[in-house]
Amino acid sequence: MDPHLKSLILENPVFRSYLFYSSILALKMMLMTLLTIRQRLLNNALVSQEDAAFLGGTVCWTNEKVERVRRGHRNDMESIYLFLLVAFAYIWTDPEPVWADYLFLTFTIARILHTVVYNVIVVPQPARGLAWLVGYLITGYMAIKTYTAFK
Amino acid sequence: MDPHLKSLILENPVFRSYLFYSSILALKMMLMTLLTIRQRLLNNALVSQEDAAFLGGTVCWTNEKVERVRRGHRNDMESIYLFLLVAFAYIWTDPEPVWADYLFLTFTIARILHTVVYNVIVVPQPARGLAWLVGYLITGYMAIKTYTAFK
Amino acid sequence: MDPHLKSLILENPVFRSYLFYSSILALKMMLMTLLTIRQRLLNNALVSQEDAAFLGGTVCWTNEKVERVRRGHRNDMESIYLFLLVAFAYIWTDPEPVWADYLFLTFTIARILHTVVYNVIVVPQPARGLAWLVGYLITGYMAIKTYTAFK
Repeated sequence: MDPHLKSLILENPVFRSYLFYSSILALKMMLMTLLTIRQRLLNNALVSQEDAAFLGGTVCWTNEKVERVRRGHRNDMESIYLFLLVAFAYIWTDPEPVWADYLFLTFTIARILHTVVYNVIVVPQPARGLAWLVGYLITGYMAIKTYTAFK
Repeated sequence: MDPHLKSLILENPVFRSYLFYSSILALKMMLMTLLTIRQRLLNNALVSQEDAAFLGGTVCWTNEKVERVRRGHRNDMESIYLFLLVAFAYIWTDPEPVWADYLFLTFTIARILHTVVYNVIVVPQPARGLAWLVGYLITGYMAIKTYTAFK
Repeated sequence: MDPHLKSLILENPVFRSYLFYSSILALKMMLMTLLTIRQRLLNNALVSQEDAAFLGGTVCWTNEKVERVRRGHRNDMESIYLFLLVAFAYIWTDPEPVWADYLFLTFTIARILHTVVYNVIVVPQPARGLAWLVGYLITGYMAIKTYTAFK
């Protein structure tokens, strides 16, 4: 086993790569909140009475444009959080650094594309399905590798 | 203190156990997405216009069978993500390895049972409530232990 | 670089601080579930047929008081989980311990205030918006610092 893996240290390139992509995925997820606020204001579909009172708008829980962004955000929570937790475990299976970096990069690109085709410009299916599937398969692969390594 | 705990290393059996149950819980959560897709197709309750256009179905946001799986998935996000984050902190309180492993195992079984009685076969309450409670108490115990150790 | 940062060890005060605030934030999030249960019982707005059968109540998915707590809980998942994942990466950028502790403390207070003004006593806006913004800016700052350190 790679001696770098004896403990979690910055000399491990897989761990550095994990930290780097963590930051990008976090920033991408934070953008979802801004997209939601934008759609709430553009479509006058606010979430609570105190928001409506403050901004002089109306409450609406069923606006398609707002709910679409919220679904995208929820899908990020289902996908990106799981990826970050599984990838942390996967680091300890001692993967080839170039391969691990490639998986992290591909996941990150797939999730950015997911947001683009779902919440920036609406692209017909199967665009969103494929972007989601790439991230799903990478997370599943890492989970199975971790299970196998530590069972 | 156990010298293994001076840094995060694979020689620490609690940490190995954490990585192992992480992978199982991740795979269990990934299953929720497949269960949601299955219910959307079975009940012709798709989530967006582009999905309806692609599959030739109809959009519906209020189908009980679909929403039931989505509630289960959301409950996983509320419970399992919190467990994984708290358990990571709890590792550093230097628990007895056999005891920590038992907590992780029990949490994992409780969450699998939660999915079974909520989203596979619907079992009358208090089945789901009890499955949820076991996971909740374990997470709370670990959070309080961590708080006490590092306050 | 601080030699403590060569690996993840308890001698690193930033890491100890992270573990401590993890436990408080986890306990705060767990409280949201109790607040939801309380509103479901107070307003007789249960979530499923088996709950209604067990408790002798009615199913309702659109009660404002229940949904308000669920939105607060969801906002915690969007904010606190992201903070915990980003803060873990931020530890490795070797921040000044006093500064990191201040950021973690401020985030924790802001999120507790968010719950108070949203789900305990309803305070007019911009109270909730400001509480949310403080946590958002801290998370964004840490994500950008991490990106810069490991790009």
